[in-house]
Amino acid sequence: MILPKEFDLIARHFTPLAGPAALGLRDDAAILAPPPGRDLAITVDTMVAGVHFPPDDNPDLVARKLLRVNLSDLAAMGATPLGYLLALSVPRATPETWFAAFAAGLAEDQARYGITLLGGDTTSTPGPVSLTVTMLGHTAPGQALTRSGARPGDLLFVTGTVGDGVLGLYAIRGEIPDSGGTLAARYRLPSPRVGLAFAGIATACMDISDGLVQDLGHICRASGVAAQVDAWRVPLSPAARATGRLATCLAGGDDYELLLAVPPAQALALTAACAAADVPVTQIGAFVDGAPDVVVVDASGARMDFAVAGWSHF
Amino acid sequence: MILPKEFDLIARHFTPLAGPAALGLRDDAAILAPPPGRDLAITVDTMVAGVHFPPDDNPDLVARKLLRVNLSDLAAMGATPLGYLLALSVPRATPETWFAAFAAGLAEDQARYGITLLGGDTTSTPGPVSLTVTMLGHTAPGQALTRSGARPGDLLFVTGTVGDGVLGLYAIRGEIPDSGGTLAARYRLPSPRVGLAFAGIATACMDISDGLVQDLGHICRASGVAAQVDAWRVPLSPAARATGRLATCLAGGDDYELLLAVPPAQALALTAACAAADVPVTQIGAFVDGAPDVVVVDASGARMDFAVAGWSHF
Repeated sequence: MILPKEFDLIARHFTPLAGPAALGLRDDAAILAPPPGRDLAITVDTMVAGVHFPPDDNPDLVARKLLRVNLSDLAAMGATPLGYLLALSVPRATPETWFAAFAAGLAEDQARYGITLLGGDTTSTPGPVSLTVTMLGHTAPGQALTRSGARPGDLLFVTGTVGDGVLGLYAIRGEIPDSGGTLAARYRLPSPRVGLAFAGIATACMDISDGLVQDLGHICRASGVAAQVDAWRVPLSPAARATGRLATCLAGGDDYELLLAVPPAQALALTAACAAADVPVTQIGAFVDGAPDVVVVDASGARMDFAVAGWSHF
Repeated sequence: MILPKEFDLIARHFTPLAGPAALGLRDDAAILAPPPGRDLAITVDTMVAGVHFPPDDNPDLVARKLLRVNLSDLAAMGATPLGYLLALSVPRATPETWFAAFAAGLAEDQARYGITLLGGDTTSTPGPVSLTVTMLGHTAPGQALTRSGARPGDLLFVTGTVGDGVLGLYAIRGEIPDSGGTLAARYRLPSPRVGLAFAGIATACMDISDGLVQDLGHICRASGVAAQVDAWRVPLSPAARATGRLATCLAGGDDYELLLAVPPAQALALTAACAAADVPVTQIGAFVDGAPDVVVVDASGARMDFAVAGWSHF
């Protein structure tokens, strides 16, 4: 009996990535003894070629971005990464070199973030490459950060810089210059803010994937508060600042930085936690009483309008 | 600020399906307190329109099959279902009626199998509808059934009947008759064998998704044994028997029945466990010493050949 090629591909490229819970990727499910006394955090994100990344992007970088957008979701919950499952749909004609490069990217970031492959599914598709990762992590019981805890008076912080992601996409499309390629690099390979200790400090947290204004709106709705953002305080990289496109930076996505609601009494603790991890953090506004809404004002005090704020798939 | 349509769709069709761990589908990850002292079983399966189901199939039935193929993987590990995450990639022009029918199917089988939606991701795709479910379950610690425990002398059993799945696909394509539509119905809506108590009875187990011969080969390789199947003992439905296509039934996939390795001393316990759940079970062969291989003999004792046994995506 000849075994179909699919199993060859799995054995060659994915079995070496598998942790003990994966049972060698030979069984119908992974079996995992969860860390005793911890809550599990579970998230899933799909990336489709032509929608989430350019089809001719390096498979190595695509793999790493795929892990990182999911790791960013865990970071937003304050969870420690554990491992992931991978569902891979690729055209039948996909060359083996693609799988090799893709698996090399997974291996590199598995080592960087201390995770292993738990299981997966490989199928063909008549459409574009479609990649889905389910990422598992764990938190102290009841200590997960959510979007719903922001209170009027809390300060609004953001890690790192905002806007490089969307500008990087424009640069890849040739729509704006990108000397040195720093914008494109940031779009292709975000840095999820895992490993920060915000429990007891932040009242709400989420990562910016669909754009700062839209994602801040999610915190406002979940928490029942309004938010005010001082646009001129929003930290931009030198490359982003040079484009002069502040509104684009605020509305664009793919930043994978964290938005945090923090009571004033905890602001020093936040700064210390970020400094300990060498992660820049900036106060950019505050939460206030009122119907859920995001008000962004520019340096002159004028309100900036964002009609449909951020990305929608439909 | 106008919220993009994507969030409307989620709130209308998917939030009603969410359990408490999903946090209203408003956060970056689900937070789950795992059942204390239990192992977790986790599996992922993708279904692509035009590959795993006809593109014009009823979305209600597609949703139910999607849950059931994943539930079948849990059944193969002897795990009790807990909940699932859903990653959904659909063309931008997908009408809202599609989402409504799809969610109705999910709701029906959630109730049937006692599971809830834990989280998900919704994206657009320029390709066909692509659906990925990550299903979580739990087992007693160390009691999960795997493919690797079959020993020479163990008997080989199968639940239900084999072959209706692949014949149903042929019927849907108009290649064979299907009076009454029982074959097509079985292809569209398999019955995962969840809830059976095989721990301590079976030494190995897996579900048949890629075809009996190929999947039995997986047990043989994982366990380091050979298997002999008496083709005439393999249980066929009346509709499958009427087609006269025994070899197709043995090589075809989409059965979602369980293959079980059972020591002779446990055969009675197996029969009793299946009878208690009203699930037919049939001995169709045995495991023997030898290099991993599957030998199928017909009623005359002649060996039946299966060159490439079962489905491969590549």
